Amino acid sequence: MDESKNRHALIRATSALFRRRGYAGVGLSEILAETGLPKGSLYYHFPGGKEQLAAEATRWAGRKVAELIDVSFDGAASFAAGSVALCRAIANLSREDGRIMGCPVLSIIQAGDEKPDLRRIGADVLNDWTSRIAAQAARLGRDDPQADAERLVIGLQGAWVVSLARQDVTPFETLERGMLQPV
Amino acid sequence: MDESKNRHALIRATSALFRRRGYAGVGLSEILAETGLPKGSLYYHFPGGKEQLAAEATRWAGRKVAELIDVSFDGAASFAAGSVALCRAIANLSREDGRIMGCPVLSIIQAGDEKPDLRRIGADVLNDWTSRIAAQAARLGRDDPQADAERLVIGLQGAWVVSLARQDVTPFETLERGMLQPV
Repeated sequence: MDESKNRHALIRATSALFRRRGYAGVGLSEILAETGLPKGSLYYHFPGGKEQLAAEATRWAGRKVAELIDVSFDGAASFAAGSVALCRAIANLSREDGRIMGCPVLSIIQAGDEKPDLRRIGADVLNDWTSRIAAQAARLGRDDPQADAERLVIGLQGAWVVSLARQDVTPFETLERGMLQPV
Repeated sequence: MDESKNRHALIRATSALFRRRGYAGVGLSEILAETGLPKGSLYYHFPGGKEQLAAEATRWAGRKVAELIDVSFDGAASFAAGSVALCRAIANLSREDGRIMGCPVLSIIQAGDEKPDLRRIGADVLNDWTSRIAAQAARLGRDDPQADAERLVIGLQGAWVVSLARQDVTPFETLERGMLQPV
């Protein structure tokens, strides 16, 4: 394994562990155990330790969702069609090994009262998603693209929380149906 | 302080600490420090320790929100009016000492991969909220009370997460406006 692979392995393992146990519930030793890498490798790539790793893992997870937003809306004929595609993509992302896992960004946002810098990164990621969706809403001729985007991000986060609690993805389907009909 | 007061103080402190740091981030020693009670008092009331306290704190926080649901909808002339009142009540609940704090039930739901019994209690609380809202939607003559209720619970959870990230309650206002107009 070359060093950039090690760096990426550390980020992936951190993101997966945070989804499972939250920021406070994960120690560096578990991240090392998960990757099989030595402590030196972690501090070589992330001299800031757990906080820096958390920041990078959050940005990485944020980019993954950003890609899903672009793929879901590119080529969509309407805002509703793009929104439904995105709901399905996020529902798929939430499934892992037969379970529903939480939003990786959420675990950082929840750690925020102790770690305001991390919470700010979480907020930046949510704002990036909102901007991308708003740009698509504008392209698709919606009247208030920003409000559409805000509501979709709120709906997706809420559906993710309820799906996590129930361990099934029907809340994403409920959200989908709501987007296809007036309230 | 009599013993039922001590019991309640432990539940309140646990709920507040979980909102701040999540389930994994809180130790029994912090709960004791917050209440000024001895360890014996904690184990007298909660022989099951942290898990039992977490379960009780989740149910207690769930009942507080359930009361807000009833108060917001009782006497509301329409489902939209009740929903808006509830959005405002939850936005107020999220504010504490000039900060936005997370949903107390969410911290338990997030701990769920390690503690499935606690996650189930979190899911039960969300289901209780949904049933209460659905009963109100039915009373107010809505066509699909269950779907209305599911969507409102999803929206509230999502608005809470985004408000927590941004440390402002405008997402609740966005949700409100969405309920007053067709998508």
